[in-house]
Amino acid sequence: MHRTKVRVVEDVLDANNTIARANRDDFDRHGVTVVNLMSAPGAGKTRLLERSLSGLQEQGVRVAVLEGDVQGSYDADRLSQLHIPVVQLNTDGGFGGECHLDANMVRSAIPSLPLPEIDLLVIENVGNLVCPAEFRVGEDARIMVCSVTEGEDKPLKYPLMFRACELVIINKIDLLEHLEFDIELLEYHLDAVHPGVEHLRVSAHTGEGIDAVRDWWMRTTQRAGAIA
Amino acid sequence: MHRTKVRVVEDVLDANNTIARANRDDFDRHGVTVVNLMSAPGAGKTRLLERSLSGLQEQGVRVAVLEGDVQGSYDADRLSQLHIPVVQLNTDGGFGGECHLDANMVRSAIPSLPLPEIDLLVIENVGNLVCPAEFRVGEDARIMVCSVTEGEDKPLKYPLMFRACELVIINKIDLLEHLEFDIELLEYHLDAVHPGVEHLRVSAHTGEGIDAVRDWWMRTTQRAGAIA
Repeated sequence: MHRTKVRVVEDVLDANNTIARANRDDFDRHGVTVVNLMSAPGAGKTRLLERSLSGLQEQGVRVAVLEGDVQGSYDADRLSQLHIPVVQLNTDGGFGGECHLDANMVRSAIPSLPLPEIDLLVIENVGNLVCPAEFRVGEDARIMVCSVTEGEDKPLKYPLMFRACELVIINKIDLLEHLEFDIELLEYHLDAVHPGVEHLRVSAHTGEGIDAVRDWWMRTTQRAGAIA
Repeated sequence: MHRTKVRVVEDVLDANNTIARANRDDFDRHGVTVVNLMSAPGAGKTRLLERSLSGLQEQGVRVAVLEGDVQGSYDADRLSQLHIPVVQLNTDGGFGGECHLDANMVRSAIPSLPLPEIDLLVIENVGNLVCPAEFRVGEDARIMVCSVTEGEDKPLKYPLMFRACELVIINKIDLLEHLEFDIELLEYHLDAVHPGVEHLRVSAHTGEGIDAVRDWWMRTTQRAGAIA
């Protein structure tokens, strides 16, 4: 008798990964690059998108945003000014007010996303430095945004978040001159928890470093093969 | 036949509340006032404690801190400079790296706390604007710290956190002159989600408003009857 051994799904993270792979298959089918954008509340994710996504369309990258929040649509309303598709996903609608997005929540949003018409989907996660890093949603890459107002110790206190990303954006550098903040100490701590990770110094307020972020969107979308 | 109807514990929050009441009983037995301090990562909770807890001892309030973090003891090391008892509670040690403290975690720390020798216990929660608000730990009161660098929209996006507190501290006001931040708009949003809640404008960096925070510690400890 031929026997096939099937391992049962072990826990909530295994189940999440199974659904994340299904999302991944859907994104691949449409050639869409997906980036999961994470940070603490108020680190400037939305402002960064406002600044860095504008101009991508002209360079051949058609972008959409999936906006994750516990409730409300404040960020989605802001981003709709960019004239790109923005879909709101609230974690309090049947998801119990979760502090993060998971693969199943993203799956529930897929029918609302215009996948055949885009090259890049940015998923703005719920502001939180703990749980979002634990849940893959089917993305190609993850960006972690930290603000210089948050202190140099954050990579040491939240190492999983700083490890689970391909790019770290150090935002609000325009405030450096008004803070007792040692950006090189932050980068030293970052290198300790995630050696060699790419990182950019940015001010989404003044625009300093935004070109490098836009280049990253272009490179990541091209590398994933979504555009020629 | 006499029948007593007992409702079964329904969910994780019911179980949490049962344990929170047991914690509460232990704190009451020793006349200790307990305050749960919550905020996003990097809003300045530890700095605020460094500034506002010093001097309480001289005014007859003996204080200790229970320091909650996913891992590490960076804040506890800082607070130990105050020469007060500081107990570290890590959520990754058997608690799965939880993004918040719950009543059972606090319960596990009680044997390490010098309850007979203190009047006020401050519990510094994990930096997070979502889940800490859902879990009572047996506290008398809750403080929510928000920083002016986080944006005026935070009460609207995280209403449960701003509702589940007796005091909101608006921190880092020394940076106001360098930001496009409307503090009255923040207070307007705060009043919309939690009408009439007491709030203080503070800079833990310059010390502005710290006396008012120290007064609050005194008043809250006295009101709870912990000191004469």
